[in-house]
Amino acid sequence: MKWPSHGSNPQYLFEAMGLPLPKRYIDFSANINPLGPPESLTKQWNEFIHKINVYPDPYSTRLKENIAEKENLLSTQVLIGNGGAEIITLIARMLTGKRVLIIQPTFSEYEKACKANGCEVRYLQVNHQQDWMVDLELLKEELRTADAMFLCNPNNPTGVVYSKSQIIDILKLCDKNDCQLILDEAFYDFLVDYKSITSLIKQYSNLIILRSMTKMFSIPGLRLGYVMATESVVEQITTYQSHWSVNTIAMLAGEACLEDEAFIINTQNYIQRERKRLFSFFEKENFIVSPSQVNFYLLRDAKTEDSFQLFTFLLQKGIIPRHTFNFPGLEGSWLRFAIKSTEENDQLMEVLQEWRIHLD
Amino acid sequence: MKWPSHGSNPQYLFEAMGLPLPKRYIDFSANINPLGPPESLTKQWNEFIHKINVYPDPYSTRLKENIAEKENLLSTQVLIGNGGAEIITLIARMLTGKRVLIIQPTFSEYEKACKANGCEVRYLQVNHQQDWMVDLELLKEELRTADAMFLCNPNNPTGVVYSKSQIIDILKLCDKNDCQLILDEAFYDFLVDYKSITSLIKQYSNLIILRSMTKMFSIPGLRLGYVMATESVVEQITTYQSHWSVNTIAMLAGEACLEDEAFIINTQNYIQRERKRLFSFFEKENFIVSPSQVNFYLLRDAKTEDSFQLFTFLLQKGIIPRHTFNFPGLEGSWLRFAIKSTEENDQLMEVLQEWRIHLD
Repeated sequence: MKWPSHGSNPQYLFEAMGLPLPKRYIDFSANINPLGPPESLTKQWNEFIHKINVYPDPYSTRLKENIAEKENLLSTQVLIGNGGAEIITLIARMLTGKRVLIIQPTFSEYEKACKANGCEVRYLQVNHQQDWMVDLELLKEELRTADAMFLCNPNNPTGVVYSKSQIIDILKLCDKNDCQLILDEAFYDFLVDYKSITSLIKQYSNLIILRSMTKMFSIPGLRLGYVMATESVVEQITTYQSHWSVNTIAMLAGEACLEDEAFIINTQNYIQRERKRLFSFFEKENFIVSPSQVNFYLLRDAKTEDSFQLFTFLLQKGIIPRHTFNFPGLEGSWLRFAIKSTEENDQLMEVLQEWRIHLD
Repeated sequence: MKWPSHGSNPQYLFEAMGLPLPKRYIDFSANINPLGPPESLTKQWNEFIHKINVYPDPYSTRLKENIAEKENLLSTQVLIGNGGAEIITLIARMLTGKRVLIIQPTFSEYEKACKANGCEVRYLQVNHQQDWMVDLELLKEELRTADAMFLCNPNNPTGVVYSKSQIIDILKLCDKNDCQLILDEAFYDFLVDYKSITSLIKQYSNLIILRSMTKMFSIPGLRLGYVMATESVVEQITTYQSHWSVNTIAMLAGEACLEDEAFIINTQNYIQRERKRLFSFFEKENFIVSPSQVNFYLLRDAKTEDSFQLFTFLLQKGIIPRHTFNFPGLEGSWLRFAIKSTEENDQLMEVLQEWRIHLD
């Protein structure tokens, strides 16, 4: 079976499974904020049409300056991209032919982009039995022969978070080994108590931070992400970016959303509340989850090692999780779910209860 | 002075000129259809917002199939891109390190993208004194040492068009010399009597055709283009494209516009009518223009060789042409104008008359 390499677009999953796409389904496979897009964006939508007949600002100047100001950086230390995926492509391009270490399981685009650029890719697995984190002693060894390392924090697909001091330890290890640390913070803003490490770019020229604006603000259809790094890194990857890469609507949406603190805080609280509610149900019903602190989590049935049966059962009930067949270290043994609306999460729990009855 | 590398976004031009951006201006520098965007798109705009919280189809399947059907190709012979500029970047990537011939003057992105990919770039100038076309005898010589050749037809910035039989002659010459022909047809649909050469892809595996949907349908802010080539070329450049590169709104807009034949024909007629009106004024007033058949043209004052004074005069009057300082072979001696609304074209003619009086 040829598994789709990503969640979302469930038509490709059902095609691969040889199943018809049901008329009604709930897509838990994309990690998008169920409360968005924010009103700060939607109420401007009708105005946006008046900007589509003009070329986008190729330098995304306003959005770039807004982000730089918010993060206390120079605007030359920021590059706006056509979604996080484009930023990853540009960075992989910069790493052409280099030795890249990827902490697994994680977002599959790092590997795909690095391999497309002739990198020598190696994995280091997190400890699945304990805290789902990378072992620093093992990392020390691996970094001796790595030019760059990808770390996703909070990690996709586990939802596990390294603290600021843990990240600094890893950054120092990388620095000592002349290794670039590419830190993907696509989901950082779902954390209630996130502590920014952006200021470390001034001190550590090997630090590259990726961000996405599509998850928190529910605009994956528009494509918007950015990277923060030294001027020299930003300058280099800019040469690989195609002109007018970021479309006007994404830029305007980004400008509208960036300062919507109330929406972000409301989301963080909602996600925390729903996660607690779901996790206490899972515990009671004997499902195991990854220790996620964000808006998605890994789940498996404690009673069985193989999640494929559960996956098929859920699909037939119109519940679409993300398979994990292309996450090295997981190989399908877990399913990933986004935290969605209260009603949708309720439906998930109902169907999982049916599965319990079906199995017993 | 650091000239902006493109038209549009006049703030960068005024910055380079050290002039304040006037409150009211007419931007003639971007070659966008003044009649668009079409109603077939605008009336759907409010619906589009319901799709922004879902990831785009990473394969643009529906739009790709619609184009393939329209062009009588397989959908595997089409790739949708984040604007023509992204397609050029992907092709230049494919040409890494190769010897590339560019027929000048033309769109600056070919050269920029090829150089960013370590290509050895050479120019061949069209004959500016005669028909503004490339000389086939000179081309024959150059093709002996070229792996790929870029030709823009209709050509930007001249608006000059090679006929189907002329293109076939060039294609055959390329084929004989194992040279890929990258034919950029970004403005093909402004031609009243365009004859498609798409079917030649079956016969000539060296033919790569680029298209843009942003010019005709006035959606440069959304970014949408496509390439048509052999399956093998499409497959190769797809590996360089970042995931979800084409945003949902661009895709939906493309699907809405593609079949709007009435809008296209209406545009063609309008442009032809306005061009005739403008060109007879220019002849009367002693301005020289390139023999354009599309929605833009080159212009200079027959009475003076240097267009810089005219350029400055126009900017001060709130008329923004496209400078030609970064078009090799033109070096600023001409100005490019888009054909805009009747009222805007009227204003251009008025200001040019003021220039005449000012000069005399």
